[in-house]
Amino acid sequence: MNQSYNSTLLDNAVEQLSKLPGIGGKTALRLALFLLREDEEVAVSLGESLIAMRKNIQYCHKCHNISENETCEICSNPRRDPSVVCVVESVKDVLTIEATREFHGLYHVLGGVISPLDGVSPSDLEIDSLVERVKTEGIKEIILALNPTIEGDTTNFYIFRRLADTDVSISILARGISIGNELEYTDELTLGRSILNRVPFQKN
Amino acid sequence: MNQSYNSTLLDNAVEQLSKLPGIGGKTALRLALFLLREDEEVAVSLGESLIAMRKNIQYCHKCHNISENETCEICSNPRRDPSVVCVVESVKDVLTIEATREFHGLYHVLGGVISPLDGVSPSDLEIDSLVERVKTEGIKEIILALNPTIEGDTTNFYIFRRLADTDVSISILARGISIGNELEYTDELTLGRSILNRVPFQKN
Repeated sequence: MNQSYNSTLLDNAVEQLSKLPGIGGKTALRLALFLLREDEEVAVSLGESLIAMRKNIQYCHKCHNISENETCEICSNPRRDPSVVCVVESVKDVLTIEATREFHGLYHVLGGVISPLDGVSPSDLEIDSLVERVKTEGIKEIILALNPTIEGDTTNFYIFRRLADTDVSISILARGISIGNELEYTDELTLGRSILNRVPFQKN
Repeated sequence: MNQSYNSTLLDNAVEQLSKLPGIGGKTALRLALFLLREDEEVAVSLGESLIAMRKNIQYCHKCHNISENETCEICSNPRRDPSVVCVVESVKDVLTIEATREFHGLYHVLGGVISPLDGVSPSDLEIDSLVERVKTEGIKEIILALNPTIEGDTTNFYIFRRLADTDVSISILARGISIGNELEYTDELTLGRSILNRVPFQKN
């Protein structure tokens, strides 16, 4: 139960703000009082932009990334290479990979990873549509860019098996020590794997 | 300049969210993606509650606390004692003192403290209206509850002088060691003051 602040308008704003992840009652109150002190325009723009975003953003029918049209800006960009598709867990991962500016193909957002403990089975994810894309769109390479967790690896393996009867080549993100990190602070599993999977010097 | 996320709707929501204090670009993106995942109702209620709060909250004409009517709920509550007025810096301090449930009088929100460095002079604050209230409302006691800073002390002293020709009694919040704290970690100034201003044992 939230504390009451002698104003149902303020109470309501604080209650709604505290529903956001990582924002508790005290922070919500601080944000609400900030909006009360600032020009009316600040609160109105914020409120309207959140409502407009939620009401108008769609999902691309091809890659399931967020989009303002039926097909997203990435899928409809003629300068991107449609023969390479990067498979990611969520919309956020698309943004993260785009920020590297190293990938120029298309994406496929699964909407999660296989996780029996959380009740997520392959049919809850966009895996059938991925197989369909591989079979119909002339895709040459699939890059699996899921998080390096047990669930991510399970999903990688499931997708690998589902695509076994196609001739698409399947690659996975390189795993190893982080650039700029010290060996001393790298976890043993990652360091061990990066010794086993060492690469010829000139390739770096 | 904010990063662009291939959607002006998302860009705009992230930009507006990052204007909130303590919320940077990464947190703003996390909050926006959370609202996209949740039911439409969550984003709509949040947006509408912020706009409604900012547009409709007024300030009490008597004590300058936030209010939904001309006179706030505290000033218009017949069970509160109108002869004791607690002077605070901001609306937030009213909420903080109300949370203690130890005060049953009325408030007076100054809207700041005297601070020549920040260009805040007595005429920018609700000090004239406080003097007016003391002279016309039959107030018997003023409790100065400003923050224990140099600016707070300056403002305390200014109010004390302005009220010198009235017969209102003026008190100030007790200063001393915090309950539950260890002496070892109390700052020397506070500990020194609490030795000088020690009180008879039975009063605690």
